[in-house]
Amino acid sequence: MLERYGHGGDWVTARELYGAEDGPKAFVDFSANMNPFGPPACVGHILKSYADAGEIARYPDPAVRGLRGKLAGRHGVSVDGLLVGNGAAELIDLLFRALKPKTTVLAEPCFGEYREAAEKNGSAVRAIGLRAEDGFRLTGEAVDRMLRQLREAGLAPGETLWMLGSPNNPTGECVARNVVEKLLASGAMTAVDEAFMDFAANEPELSLLKEAASRDRLIVIRSMTKFYAVPGIRLGYMAASPALIRRLAALQVPWSVNSLAQRIGEAVLDEAAYAARTVAWAREERAWLAARLTEFGLTAYGGAAVNYVLAAIPGRIGWTSDRLQEELGRLGILIRDASRFGGLDRRYFRVAVRLREDNETLLAALRALLARPMPEREAKEE
Amino acid sequence: MLERYGHGGDWVTARELYGAEDGPKAFVDFSANMNPFGPPACVGHILKSYADAGEIARYPDPAVRGLRGKLAGRHGVSVDGLLVGNGAAELIDLLFRALKPKTTVLAEPCFGEYREAAEKNGSAVRAIGLRAEDGFRLTGEAVDRMLRQLREAGLAPGETLWMLGSPNNPTGECVARNVVEKLLASGAMTAVDEAFMDFAANEPELSLLKEAASRDRLIVIRSMTKFYAVPGIRLGYMAASPALIRRLAALQVPWSVNSLAQRIGEAVLDEAAYAARTVAWAREERAWLAARLTEFGLTAYGGAAVNYVLAAIPGRIGWTSDRLQEELGRLGILIRDASRFGGLDRRYFRVAVRLREDNETLLAALRALLARPMPEREAKEE
Repeated sequence: MLERYGHGGDWVTARELYGAEDGPKAFVDFSANMNPFGPPACVGHILKSYADAGEIARYPDPAVRGLRGKLAGRHGVSVDGLLVGNGAAELIDLLFRALKPKTTVLAEPCFGEYREAAEKNGSAVRAIGLRAEDGFRLTGEAVDRMLRQLREAGLAPGETLWMLGSPNNPTGECVARNVVEKLLASGAMTAVDEAFMDFAANEPELSLLKEAASRDRLIVIRSMTKFYAVPGIRLGYMAASPALIRRLAALQVPWSVNSLAQRIGEAVLDEAAYAARTVAWAREERAWLAARLTEFGLTAYGGAAVNYVLAAIPGRIGWTSDRLQEELGRLGILIRDASRFGGLDRRYFRVAVRLREDNETLLAALRALLARPMPEREAKEE
Repeated sequence: MLERYGHGGDWVTARELYGAEDGPKAFVDFSANMNPFGPPACVGHILKSYADAGEIARYPDPAVRGLRGKLAGRHGVSVDGLLVGNGAAELIDLLFRALKPKTTVLAEPCFGEYREAAEKNGSAVRAIGLRAEDGFRLTGEAVDRMLRQLREAGLAPGETLWMLGSPNNPTGECVARNVVEKLLASGAMTAVDEAFMDFAANEPELSLLKEAASRDRLIVIRSMTKFYAVPGIRLGYMAASPALIRRLAALQVPWSVNSLAQRIGEAVLDEAAYAARTVAWAREERAWLAARLTEFGLTAYGGAAVNYVLAAIPGRIGWTSDRLQEELGRLGILIRDASRFGGLDRRYFRVAVRLREDNETLLAALRALLARPMPEREAKEE
């Protein structure tokens, strides 16, 4: 399977599995949710000057002063309420290491790193199972039920961390503001992963970042690598109370954020036209792709303008997502087998939204495959 | 002071302190021990293609397969005995988090991150004080004395980690092989930080890396950023028993090593001519610089061909290293005030060895300053 290391976008494994010889260009990658426009033009300029100007030969700024200052200006928060990390993954890990929550509550299906980080740090995981019939939305009733269970189990709210994606991966649903208020009122720590929030047209309304920098017990994590298409270089940030930021920063490895990531982060924040174009594209192209998938008889989930679609294959079509991934991989198309997400089974797959031509390639391949019976599995695989 | 974040090479702080307006180029930096030839030419080519080929827009290989394979070939060890990290700093941190040693033994002065990592992870630090009259060498007697103290304190050898630099920073001395054998025989865990080992002409004889990949309880950490002058991008690796490597890898954050660092690491290992030129330069230029410092009446320490010199100012010269750092900083020259290293006082400073022209600039400034009485400190400093 493609998710040998737990995630999509792993073209080294893809090459091993599907045998393309000539590198990652041989694949059309729908398995990682990346902005298909590629990085803004400023990134190319920075890479050209990064070696020439000798910047690579100097240590990164250990305090990430330039980028934190720009982020503070952009979001209207204090620099003391912001921490930059070696990808959002580092910030999630630091959060669990600093808080050491006795219990972690997840709403599954969700990004697999939440459970990994919790278990790695000895936190017991309790998962709310999001239901397809609710459109995978986290309902106030499900939250109330879990809060009651935690109380009945004698768990102090301050020892519980709720780790929620908003928009959630792979479902595309945002956490409702009243749900967050309910959690904060209960006394629980609440971390909201807004890795895909930049794609949403109504970000200012949906995002909790500004509040996180001033309210105790609310943490917001953001990624800069998906929206700006620079996952290779690793960059994420977090907003929380200054006291919590200081605790996490003390655990962080020195020079954790490389200087190229810092420079790129500073530059892309000025790319207003790129951002506007991406948001407009995400809203339109996602709706278009979801509509086409629905025409094939698939069910498409998620309404927010994210850049991916969770789809379910109904039983009558007779295909499973692992075999679909495999057959598409042989055609040079990578998708995410969503049965690897807790709470989903082999009916589900996730595709990134790409530019129209690629999306049409995917749709043509899907149409051809799903019209045929699912092929018998070969006796032995790689 | 320049070491506001505990280390040299911090040109953002330098600019704040010494007021240069036009960026890091305004300083000649002797405070960070970097190969002064700058990165090999292949690094520039990689940066040019990194954006163009779209590699920045893909996730890094989570298992760092290409670079680990090349390192295994170079050192003649198994890939299972190697782990690549987001700089050597990440590997030091992972080591302490995985081993959780009750006690950490250091030989001070040494790199400040050892103590930081130990204390961050709740390990009690016991330090052997290296002595100027021994040339700051770690002697067998000092090791025996510490082993006896640990036994008397009832500390099990398996709960103790010895964390040693070889060549040691800032003293430039290597750990003798018989000292390491003594430690391993005692049952202690022994980690050797070989961050500067590539600069040594007799690396194959001095390095313990090959043994670390096959022996229990021996760990070797290497940096790739000093020798190849790419600290901005972060890259280090570690050799240890496959069982320990697996434990550390399980704690590592996903995609911790960015893809540019992976690509650069693979490429620089082929730069044999660059490596040979650097080793020859380090041996000659370090000896030359140390001889000139000695002519000024300073004492220069360390014999191994590293790329830095620890120097002591005798009392009769009447200067302290903090004031010397400050006055040189005003002239655009950054040095390391070595009194920040445990066990050293304000007589000591550390300078990187740079190319001849820069070294002459440093020497001329030193000659002019040390010939004058140390100026009175101004009443108030920023």
